[in-house]
Amino acid sequence: MAQGPEKRSGVLKKLLNDPFDAVDEMVEGFVAAHEDLVRLVGPRVVGRKAAERTKVGIVTGGGSGHEPAFLGYVGRGLADAAAIGNVFAAPSPDVCLEAIRAASGGLGVLLLYGNYSGDILNFGIAAERAAAEGIATRTVVVTDDVASAGRVEVNKRRGIAGDVFVIKCAGAMAERGASLDDVERVARDANRATHSMGVALSACEVPGSERLSFELADDEMEIGLGIHGEPGVRRGPLMTADEIAAILVEALLADLDQPTGNDLALLVNGLGATARLDLYVLYRAARR
Amino acid sequence: MAQGPEKRSGVLKKLLNDPFDAVDEMVEGFVAAHEDLVRLVGPRVVGRKAAERTKVGIVTGGGSGHEPAFLGYVGRGLADAAAIGNVFAAPSPDVCLEAIRAASGGLGVLLLYGNYSGDILNFGIAAERAAAEGIATRTVVVTDDVASAGRVEVNKRRGIAGDVFVIKCAGAMAERGASLDDVERVARDANRATHSMGVALSACEVPGSERLSFELADDEMEIGLGIHGEPGVRRGPLMTADEIAAILVEALLADLDQPTGNDLALLVNGLGATARLDLYVLYRAARR
Repeated sequence: MAQGPEKRSGVLKKLLNDPFDAVDEMVEGFVAAHEDLVRLVGPRVVGRKAAERTKVGIVTGGGSGHEPAFLGYVGRGLADAAAIGNVFAAPSPDVCLEAIRAASGGLGVLLLYGNYSGDILNFGIAAERAAAEGIATRTVVVTDDVASAGRVEVNKRRGIAGDVFVIKCAGAMAERGASLDDVERVARDANRATHSMGVALSACEVPGSERLSFELADDEMEIGLGIHGEPGVRRGPLMTADEIAAILVEALLADLDQPTGNDLALLVNGLGATARLDLYVLYRAARR
Repeated sequence: MAQGPEKRSGVLKKLLNDPFDAVDEMVEGFVAAHEDLVRLVGPRVVGRKAAERTKVGIVTGGGSGHEPAFLGYVGRGLADAAAIGNVFAAPSPDVCLEAIRAASGGLGVLLLYGNYSGDILNFGIAAERAAAEGIATRTVVVTDDVASAGRVEVNKRRGIAGDVFVIKCAGAMAERGASLDDVERVARDANRATHSMGVALSACEVPGSERLSFELADDEMEIGLGIHGEPGVRRGPLMTADEIAAILVEALLADLDQPTGNDLALLVNGLGATARLDLYVLYRAARR
């Protein structure tokens, strides 16, 4: 076991060209790889290949750097279009508007995205312009991260992996032909029933940047961080998977306002950088 | 851009309990997460939930640490059972035999796994024991990695992501009701037509080990490595995604013995540790 070089320092190396072209090249690659399912509607806008024209539209979007969010949420029973921003940055109002147009079939469009000020601002501008074009929109901002604000300030919470459940529920309703009112209601219910909490073992890094978003020692972890490295609620020594799962599950259950005894869906998500080996070990621990 | 701490050293931190329990806990978590599709046949053996009993069986397997290989290859039109070893180690003969029994429906079982001496030894012992029990098996060893041996020594090549194509083609034939002869033939044809080559930016690490499998400087990459960190064919300064894709695609095309003009399927695979952002940028480059 003690053969080979010692573990040592290393910057995160990326397989990219110019980091400032990374998002556009990623979108091109994504559309080429999945051309049976999606199409490039315009720069930074990915849409369903065969969009239904007689249903409520669903638009999602946000910054890049946490793929498959958000372009991976485009598909049947999910979103009709995604607006794509730079790494960890909201899509521009123009991009948001283009996504709304692509998703519009005349029955209104529901906007679903995480609770971040940039996204709220830019999608809000786009929604106003869409209204001027005669496209009715509603907005449900996803707020699943229980670590980011208390129960009395739920509307200040960040949206993270909870997008998956909210988009799935709303997308399924829209696919069934439900009205904009009903699709919006289901999205709000799904968001209210969705609770998440994260743990980080190391910081995240933006391509092209020379700096990490924060610093964690080799034997430390931090609980409750945001998807972009926003500060968490508790930093301490690295624990085992079972201990971490117990902390997260306890916090999530304490946050539920549903009667006990209901079935719950469990999502263990690595935001793209955690090995499946670890994720399944955590899933096992969280299910117990 | 220049805010936050400088990039710094860091060991790879894992979300595990005792590293020596990691594989069994991962298998438990996998089966719990996908209980609609798979079942735990026995320790370290994952099988299809609803195995067909009137088709040729397909068994795959190998070491852990490169999930979703191999348990993720169990499913309809794919493998009927997977035999699971420790991290980077072949499954034991007992485990291989249990997987063969689980996949057997009386029409024979095809064994598909990567070309590694431990797997060949242990699956070979299991195949002999299966024969003594009246279960006929055939074996196709996957040999896609063009960097691991020259064109005149194709049977010395390692199997890496090429498993995906070989198992998919053979699994589809078996699902259609083809004979063991025909399923084996399709697997051999698929293996012959499958060519892969890898690039690494850093070494891999075995949970519980204090050592890396090799060392690469912060500005270096290595082309043609094996899935367990086996030495590559060329080490040099880190290149752009476009340059790397051009090198890999050129080497792969040079290795084909098919007439030009045929359609090719392109798989860009990160073996679990590469961000989707990078993978799609590479896919775009490889398609050009």
